[in-house]
Amino acid sequence: MTIQAGIIGDGYTSAELNRLLARHPYVQVAGVTSIENIGRKLQEVYPHLSGYSRIFCEELVKPDFFDRCDVVIFALPHGVAAPLAREALLRNTKVVDLGADFRFRQRERYEQWYQHTHPAPELLTEAVYGLPELYAERIVESRLIANPGCYPTSAILALAPALQHELIDPATIIVDSKSGASGAGRTPSFTNIFCEVNENVRAYGIASHRHTPEIEQVLSWIAGKELVVSFTPHLIPMSRGILSTTYGQLRRKVSGQEVWEIYTDFYKGKYFVTVLELGQLPQTKAVYSSNHCHIGVVVDERTGRLVAVAAIDNLVKGASGQAIQNLNLMFGLPEESGLDFPGVMP
Amino acid sequence: MTIQAGIIGDGYTSAELNRLLARHPYVQVAGVTSIENIGRKLQEVYPHLSGYSRIFCEELVKPDFFDRCDVVIFALPHGVAAPLAREALLRNTKVVDLGADFRFRQRERYEQWYQHTHPAPELLTEAVYGLPELYAERIVESRLIANPGCYPTSAILALAPALQHELIDPATIIVDSKSGASGAGRTPSFTNIFCEVNENVRAYGIASHRHTPEIEQVLSWIAGKELVVSFTPHLIPMSRGILSTTYGQLRRKVSGQEVWEIYTDFYKGKYFVTVLELGQLPQTKAVYSSNHCHIGVVVDERTGRLVAVAAIDNLVKGASGQAIQNLNLMFGLPEESGLDFPGVMP
Amino acid sequence: MTIQAGIIGDGYTSAELNRLLARHPYVQVAGVTSIENIGRKLQEVYPHLSGYSRIFCEELVKPDFFDRCDVVIFALPHGVAAPLAREALLRNTKVVDLGADFRFRQRERYEQWYQHTHPAPELLTEAVYGLPELYAERIVESRLIANPGCYPTSAILALAPALQHELIDPATIIVDSKSGASGAGRTPSFTNIFCEVNENVRAYGIASHRHTPEIEQVLSWIAGKELVVSFTPHLIPMSRGILSTTYGQLRRKVSGQEVWEIYTDFYKGKYFVTVLELGQLPQTKAVYSSNHCHIGVVVDERTGRLVAVAAIDNLVKGASGQAIQNLNLMFGLPEESGLDFPGVMP
Amino acid sequence: MTIQAGIIGDGYTSAELNRLLARHPYVQVAGVTSIENIGRKLQEVYPHLSGYSRIFCEELVKPDFFDRCDVVIFALPHGVAAPLAREALLRNTKVVDLGADFRFRQRERYEQWYQHTHPAPELLTEAVYGLPELYAERIVESRLIANPGCYPTSAILALAPALQHELIDPATIIVDSKSGASGAGRTPSFTNIFCEVNENVRAYGIASHRHTPEIEQVLSWIAGKELVVSFTPHLIPMSRGILSTTYGQLRRKVSGQEVWEIYTDFYKGKYFVTVLELGQLPQTKAVYSSNHCHIGVVVDERTGRLVAVAAIDNLVKGASGQAIQNLNLMFGLPEESGLDFPGVMP
Repeated sequence: MTIQAGIIGDGYTSAELNRLLARHPYVQVAGVTSIENIGRKLQEVYPHLSGYSRIFCEELVKPDFFDRCDVVIFALPHGVAAPLAREALLRNTKVVDLGADFRFRQRERYEQWYQHTHPAPELLTEAVYGLPELYAERIVESRLIANPGCYPTSAILALAPALQHELIDPATIIVDSKSGASGAGRTPSFTNIFCEVNENVRAYGIASHRHTPEIEQVLSWIAGKELVVSFTPHLIPMSRGILSTTYGQLRRKVSGQEVWEIYTDFYKGKYFVTVLELGQLPQTKAVYSSNHCHIGVVVDERTGRLVAVAAIDNLVKGASGQAIQNLNLMFGLPEESGLDFPGVMP
Repeated sequence: MTIQAGIIGDGYTSAELNRLLARHPYVQVAGVTSIENIGRKLQEVYPHLSGYSRIFCEELVKPDFFDRCDVVIFALPHGVAAPLAREALLRNTKVVDLGADFRFRQRERYEQWYQHTHPAPELLTEAVYGLPELYAERIVESRLIANPGCYPTSAILALAPALQHELIDPATIIVDSKSGASGAGRTPSFTNIFCEVNENVRAYGIASHRHTPEIEQVLSWIAGKELVVSFTPHLIPMSRGILSTTYGQLRRKVSGQEVWEIYTDFYKGKYFVTVLELGQLPQTKAVYSSNHCHIGVVVDERTGRLVAVAAIDNLVKGASGQAIQNLNLMFGLPEESGLDFPGVMP
Repeated sequence: MTIQAGIIGDGYTSAELNRLLARHPYVQVAGVTSIENIGRKLQEVYPHLSGYSRIFCEELVKPDFFDRCDVVIFALPHGVAAPLAREALLRNTKVVDLGADFRFRQRERYEQWYQHTHPAPELLTEAVYGLPELYAERIVESRLIANPGCYPTSAILALAPALQHELIDPATIIVDSKSGASGAGRTPSFTNIFCEVNENVRAYGIASHRHTPEIEQVLSWIAGKELVVSFTPHLIPMSRGILSTTYGQLRRKVSGQEVWEIYTDFYKGKYFVTVLELGQLPQTKAVYSSNHCHIGVVVDERTGRLVAVAAIDNLVKGASGQAIQNLNLMFGLPEESGLDFPGVMP
Repeated sequence: MTIQAGIIGDGYTSAELNRLLARHPYVQVAGVTSIENIGRKLQEVYPHLSGYSRIFCEELVKPDFFDRCDVVIFALPHGVAAPLAREALLRNTKVVDLGADFRFRQRERYEQWYQHTHPAPELLTEAVYGLPELYAERIVESRLIANPGCYPTSAILALAPALQHELIDPATIIVDSKSGASGAGRTPSFTNIFCEVNENVRAYGIASHRHTPEIEQVLSWIAGKELVVSFTPHLIPMSRGILSTTYGQLRRKVSGQEVWEIYTDFYKGKYFVTVLELGQLPQTKAVYSSNHCHIGVVVDERTGRLVAVAAIDNLVKGASGQAIQNLNLMFGLPEESGLDFPGVMP
């Protein structure tokens, strides 16, 4: 069986999908659409794909493109994917959307944070939030996956066991994240040119970043009650990787060992999540270019807080790798197909 | 008037002292002591000093060395400076210690966190914590300055106005710091070689870093009551710079504008602290190689938290520049002598 | 005496001029012109200038702007400066041009390599190539300075003594240069965003880079005969710095010591050029943010070649610092005014 | 069939062997020896291997270790491997040596450049230089492979077609290489700590680097006559990657297109070498973490020189990947087994 996957868009997450699918045993890239590079060989745009892609970037011609695909993966800015996804679904083509269009169950939340009228609100109840470690059962049965944001993936994986087990007070959650620059995509701007990022660190979007409501929505589902979080993203001088350091006030006295056991148990059988030995802390380079997530936990007895730290590669577990993990589940493939390799270190 | 300053040690903070003092209008480097580089020209060890230093590294010969100096600056690991400082003081040579030996008023706190019997506890009451923005009056009259740690400098400057004005609940403080690698000094180790730091980010020393009690001590002084903080340092792939993102639960409803005015007012007349316009956030590159500290404040109305972010260069405001600022005050010089230049950007 | 200097343009070289002139004892920035940032505070665009600049970016209004200035420094792309420079000169305002418009004595060479009709060819004979280590006497008397390109500055300083003393065969010169990304300016593009530069190295413009004829012109002047060179620039993952490794076949058997003496003698009294001790090689970080140039020489006895390596900061000695050095000479100031400080290391 | 491969050493090239072999379809890691980490889990030393290695580092116990292995790969400093390799061969275990011990056919050349008496000179005639693109036929039949150095791999691949086809004068070859820091290994030193490498570039070992005679030996074989080259390595601020820019005087007038055809023809059927389209130049990130080599060629008509540029990942094609490529050939496996994936970009 070979699944035909179409990719809409030719930015970094598209390049990453092509890199990963080039070695996927069961999935083939049926086509890649572009606006600026129509007619160009993809391996000319992305020379690392030389020898691994015969694709020429094409214009999106509907519905032909959808008909050629068993699944289309949208690697587009928010607001653009939703109407196209509707068409794809009508033609029985499954959808994985890397953008934000289908991440919120409530249309209002989307419209408030993204300042944009939702283009296909009728699909929101159907869409499944594609975090396989939490929602694999629903993903398996879905035809429309909202692939999580990169920051939310790391924050939710860091906090889910603690919230589920009521270890921490949901009113006290702080997520302090550090991201490499590829999260901002490939569009040149004053803030992502080399000289502005190199040898520099900055916080941005404090109390206003669009991943905030996404983190809150999922953590609220887990906690069984509405909660809000303080989320601060930082841009640090590296290309790939997110480290999210999360804090929560402990509701009871608990040892590091006990927390570690809860986390280890929670992620038992989850191939891509590794809870590090007590005393070890994650680093992003250990998961570089891979779909793995490393988590470390520390109980701060003096302050009564839990500190849980998660490391992922924002382009893989935080985007394209997770999309493939979802695709695997949707088509009944082994979850780790095409994703089963370690990070690149050093 | 030319003040003769001796420097004990030849690591990065010593190099930075030499770089800065090379252009100081009133201070001359009287000598630099070393263990490994005795007899070598300093500009051979640090080629950026070529043409700006005639110093040959020398062995520390007591008391001769102290007698040649009006002030000695200790750029040594903790535990080593204290007995030497005692001797220097006995010979009427003033002391600025870049290490931790004199930072704690209570000997026990030092001995507990540094696992080391204090070598000169009788000096602890006399030593002044050398953060000029808070303690200039006492520094002016002191002969023994404990230069603050790099993380504490950034954390305290970020939080001092909020605590002083009782804006935040002292029980809720979290300090999440990101530091360049020069903070770890020049001694090679498995954790500071290029390939382990580059394209990587990690947290370390969670709930156990030695700068924690130092932050707590000073914030407790400001708050007028004992407090503890959660402090998480991170190593990020850059050479210089610390960004500290600090969080505290607001005690009352307050606008960003009001907070900004409190901060601006608090730092009025403090030459090296700039409170950025509301809506702007600091970045470390803007203070690169300079003694300046940039602070940005955000009120997160949804969570009721204050987020205050401070950026410094860890080797300058976080170490050698602040030492010179203290020295200036101790000798009645204008505070900004030798330090009055902008950061290097890009 | 305070000289009023106007700056045309607000890119990185303009920012660097403002950084350096902020501490210049005899020069004041009279104004900075902009297209995109008219009306904005310069320190808002460049936060490292906070507290060091009261300038608001202004539109260039001719001839008013020129009349306010003793000298204008053009920090503009080629082709734009020349007609404006003509106007400035007519109003008795001196000119330093950071671009290429006045670098070539022969209009044809400019027009061939820059594919652009020269806008003011009548000024080419008057313009002086502003490399003070070679042409200080002419600079002193000039009112129109063509500030050298960054690569040519490093290549020429590396090779001038060897050519002057006929050590190497002029037909065998190869210049292999490595540059940080700030040389490409501040305009965002696909090639200068962080993720394309970081953890990457590439050659570009082989046999076609526009700095080639500039290097050739000046080396030909020195050699007293026309020569061509192979010049290969490389983009490496850092913000500042150029290292040029140059090769030439030796015309006679010569020792490293002899070459070193020739170089040392050649640069005697040149404040900003340091010939390193034999056995030492330059590194760009040692001149970071400074106007210094470090040179190292090696005689390869096995191949009969001279290898001379020069390190500069492309934004300082390769652009804005050298412009100020030229300005100092044009106005009879000490050559090192405002530029006399060491590099920032580490 | 599963081949048992033992790895001697636990530095970066060993880590890379483990990373690659973890996904090799026909090879299993039989054991990893260590000096400092005996008894530790390898995935504790290298957390990116978490879940991909069950190895505990062990002491090298001869001859037991060799008996367990079909092949041993030596990832050791020069001088140490040779006597151990002799023992392994005696026990019918094949050998791939990542170090320099078996790279030279003439013992004198080794002893002169490495300042070390050769420990097993009788094996030098038997050893095969393991550059599969040139010597696959001999590798297939060998039991002792000298894996090429990282710089030589890139330099030889860049120059081989031009020398073979007598395009360039063998007396005029210059190799200017730029390497990431992982080439220096994992042992901490003053030159490889982060702050010395970051935001810096330097040349080192000019006219004296030990890879010089290795490049010369192989290029001499190709040229059919003894030649010497100028080789200059540079350390640039990245972890992985080597870009070698090579220069040679053309012996006749030739077009870029003709050169490109010669190169393309030369590497026809060589899976891991890609000659880029004329006009494209290689970049190291495109081969990051992969065994591929990208080559670009330019004819500089003005100077009559050929410029050929090659990019590899020094830890893969320049070390561990090439070792596996050799191993594949030695055991009759498809050459690309375990190595058939694209680079990681961005």
